[in-house]
Amino acid sequence: MSGDLIRVSEIFGPTIQGEGALIGQPTVFVRTGGCDYRCKWCDTLHAVDSAYRDQWCPMTPEAVMMQVEILSGGQPLTVSLSGGNPAIQPLGDLIDLGHAEGYRFALETQGSIARDWFSTLDVLTLSPKPPSSGMAIDWQKLAECVEAAGPGTQVVLKVVIFDEADYAFARDAAARYPDLMLYLQPGNHTPPAPEDANGAIDMAGIMDRMRWLVDKVSSDRWYTATVLPQLHTLIWGNLRGV
Amino acid sequence: MSGDLIRVSEIFGPTIQGEGALIGQPTVFVRTGGCDYRCKWCDTLHAVDSAYRDQWCPMTPEAVMMQVEILSGGQPLTVSLSGGNPAIQPLGDLIDLGHAEGYRFALETQGSIARDWFSTLDVLTLSPKPPSSGMAIDWQKLAECVEAAGPGTQVVLKVVIFDEADYAFARDAAARYPDLMLYLQPGNHTPPAPEDANGAIDMAGIMDRMRWLVDKVSSDRWYTATVLPQLHTLIWGNLRGV
Repeated sequence: MSGDLIRVSEIFGPTIQGEGALIGQPTVFVRTGGCDYRCKWCDTLHAVDSAYRDQWCPMTPEAVMMQVEILSGGQPLTVSLSGGNPAIQPLGDLIDLGHAEGYRFALETQGSIARDWFSTLDVLTLSPKPPSSGMAIDWQKLAECVEAAGPGTQVVLKVVIFDEADYAFARDAAARYPDLMLYLQPGNHTPPAPEDANGAIDMAGIMDRMRWLVDKVSSDRWYTATVLPQLHTLIWGNLRGV
Repeated sequence: MSGDLIRVSEIFGPTIQGEGALIGQPTVFVRTGGCDYRCKWCDTLHAVDSAYRDQWCPMTPEAVMMQVEILSGGQPLTVSLSGGNPAIQPLGDLIDLGHAEGYRFALETQGSIARDWFSTLDVLTLSPKPPSSGMAIDWQKLAECVEAAGPGTQVVLKVVIFDEADYAFARDAAARYPDLMLYLQPGNHTPPAPEDANGAIDMAGIMDRMRWLVDKVSSDRWYTATVLPQLHTLIWGNLRGV
């Protein structure tokens, strides 16, 4: 048995990935608890705020993988590692266990902490937080994350956009990494409260932002960007566990 | 000047691709007029029904490419060739012209007519029509389309789903082509009338079908399928030209 325990907020699925490079693809989510960031518009505070720490379960990699296999019916699929910031957790053994069974692993992180086991990931989504988050970007840390990816790792960028400053930030990120696919995602200004797993969501406002983003990208002729909404919020709103 | 004229229903963009493999990516659409099919739920009758033939403009490949370059500001992007059935039209010269300028070409067709110039496409989306369309599938014709793709052509399948019979059809298609990505797309039972470019749309009903599809794929453990809605209808409803 592995010695390092993974702090798990929730494991759920199969559902479809709602964001980014794997949008629409069936997946099981493993959401870890704990984050080094406190984004103003965080939509998963239940996995971030340490006030909810008593809801996070320390689990061995074997126990996590067992739960994933139960949910997937033992049939391999892509496991989405999310958080919080999953880079805080010791996930290397879990990835190795799953790979041995044919599972694939996609991890999303803000890119503030690089891990050597990033090299074993199938997909690494780096989502540097723009100005509206209230967090400061450390481009050096992001670079370390990009460099930690392995030869078999697909690395992509994803930036949540609320306003012009965020958009300018995303353009800067794209200029730094012209060879990486970059996904722009309209932000949700009505994220769920952690104690409310199905709060109201201003879908009309989010879709207004989506249209604005498409217009921006088109008029700026930024044709290498990809603009995608959070599909799960369109389907299920702020409902948790789907 | 090329001798063969392309029958064009509309050219518009840049906007984002709303469906399938290139979802969210900026593109200019070239929609051709004319179709060998008459699907019950066709959402582009203005480019299919010969009653609207007087709105289709015969254009040289050069004229089409000039219009695409005006819309894109002369900056290369992916051109989406759609219809109607664009396989009816002589598009080989257009693709060659665009490639010389750095443009990429993605074509979507039902797969009823194979063309030798399919080999020059960057992306070929084959969308065999399921039972609810009222059209009969000819698997041999579809196979000829797959075979017509070139070494640099990404071939994907996309199936519109309205009901259980359509879903079974999609599973059959997947079994025939296990190596191709397959996209499942919930159908729009409220397509626009051709004379009404912004008709009402039952978004709630479409999203019910989306949830049903995600549940089906998950419970059947069909993890190689990708489930995506028509993103443009979520953003703009039945509005034409976006």
